[in-house]
Amino acid sequence: MEKVISKYLDDVEAAIDKSLVKLGESTLADAMRYTTRLGGKRIRPLLTLAAADIYGDHKNALDCAVAIEMIHTMSLIHDDLPAMDNDDYRRGKLTNHKVFGEAQAVLAGDSLTVYAFEVIANSPALSDKAKIDVMKILADYSGLNGMMGGQSLDIIHENKLTDAKDFEILKTIHFMKTTKLFQAGLLMGAVANGAGNGAKHTLEQFGAKVGLAFQVQDDILDETSTFEATGKATQKDALKGKLTYPKVFGLERSKEMRDEYLTEALGIIKDTDRLGELRDIAIYMVVRDK
Amino acid sequence: MEKVISKYLDDVEAAIDKSLVKLGESTLADAMRYTTRLGGKRIRPLLTLAAADIYGDHKNALDCAVAIEMIHTMSLIHDDLPAMDNDDYRRGKLTNHKVFGEAQAVLAGDSLTVYAFEVIANSPALSDKAKIDVMKILADYSGLNGMMGGQSLDIIHENKLTDAKDFEILKTIHFMKTTKLFQAGLLMGAVANGAGNGAKHTLEQFGAKVGLAFQVQDDILDETSTFEATGKATQKDALKGKLTYPKVFGLERSKEMRDEYLTEALGIIKDTDRLGELRDIAIYMVVRDK
Repeated sequence: MEKVISKYLDDVEAAIDKSLVKLGESTLADAMRYTTRLGGKRIRPLLTLAAADIYGDHKNALDCAVAIEMIHTMSLIHDDLPAMDNDDYRRGKLTNHKVFGEAQAVLAGDSLTVYAFEVIANSPALSDKAKIDVMKILADYSGLNGMMGGQSLDIIHENKLTDAKDFEILKTIHFMKTTKLFQAGLLMGAVANGAGNGAKHTLEQFGAKVGLAFQVQDDILDETSTFEATGKATQKDALKGKLTYPKVFGLERSKEMRDEYLTEALGIIKDTDRLGELRDIAIYMVVRDK
Repeated sequence: MEKVISKYLDDVEAAIDKSLVKLGESTLADAMRYTTRLGGKRIRPLLTLAAADIYGDHKNALDCAVAIEMIHTMSLIHDDLPAMDNDDYRRGKLTNHKVFGEAQAVLAGDSLTVYAFEVIANSPALSDKAKIDVMKILADYSGLNGMMGGQSLDIIHENKLTDAKDFEILKTIHFMKTTKLFQAGLLMGAVANGAGNGAKHTLEQFGAKVGLAFQVQDDILDETSTFEATGKATQKDALKGKLTYPKVFGLERSKEMRDEYLTEALGIIKDTDRLGELRDIAIYMVVRDK
């Protein structure tokens, strides 16, 4: 498993770096590079490459992988802003606005959004039709009805979702904020290699389940892990009185739920040809300590 | 002249409204609509339609017109943020973050950026190739090397450009922040109707000159107009000690320069077939009192 992940990761990091180098020298380019280069698990681009590998050569989807990671990165930069989550640290390093100032951080997120679409528009591996199909997915799953809409709902309900009966709203927020970008990564990779609607439906279902497993594990880590292990503030949810899976279901039941969701996710793709890589990525997403 | 402008304006407003209605009901959708519906001069989409009209039916470029106005609107929302220009009023109304809060204003700008690309990706009037060509222009002229890069430079040099010898830097900032989106609007309209490289070059030159004339007039209005006329704070530049054309060249010479730039702009397109509309838009951009 580590070998597959590391092969993909090498390709992803090289492709991201190639795109970042092209930005040239300026403060704004530095700000765009800074958070993108903080690393992280690169889950979304890994999903893109694994999904692409089912239907063709994963290298055709490298620009899609770069684009989805840039959209994810812009969301981190903007989420960390004082007006949003007001976080000073991300992956053990100062957040973008702590290094470059709030104004440049806003603009770095803005420019990464634009650059994500530009990278796809300029991708030599994709036909014009594939570019359009991929960009439609990226826009639909990241914008108003996707990740950004989820972040908006999250802010609207800040400090308000403290009763277990509110948990369904929180699940909607998780789905939009986090799962939608996993699904986008999967669909973009598949569509880059010409996957049809049936395949897209399967991947969307898989993404939904693996997104749930990922979120439960995130909540478990927030409760049980430390700053040293995760590189960001932990127990923030608990301190804020925020609803989490452990708070609603208890820690042990949460672990069971996480494993059930992962099993369901893997069940959805079990009949897919060449699913090996995708299965490995799903496990990598959920079985983790940061 | 008013008739041509008003015909285009009706089409632009209808197309913008159609796109905004599709956003459905949510706080974030309301925030996206709020600033887009504040009106304004709609200069960029007018340029798009006028440029499109030279090479075909301007209706083919309506989605391009909507997209460029959305990118312009997102730049207004983010520029008005406390971390940027910290403006409370825009077009006589409260700015986006004053109505929806800073977090939603950041997200409204983000979602408008994504939606701009989505509108083009879904445009029934454009071939896949035209969509890609148009999106490349939109990304190139609005991102790191365009409007957003200009805003970044503007912030870096805030309160630092007070000596006349710094005026060249300020001109670069004006060019990136403002003129590049005029050029993008023009090029997108032309490319939507299949214009070639020669035509694109001419329009880019025209956009550069008309952008200069527009900027000089902006500076003149900042010095001579009032909140009542413009709907936003005036004499901000003067109060901040910021360099402006009137400050560097005097008010009378600035008016001459404005007229010279406009004349040069019109000279560039004088041999273009069916240039009437574009000429009218250029005059509309510069001969204005708000």
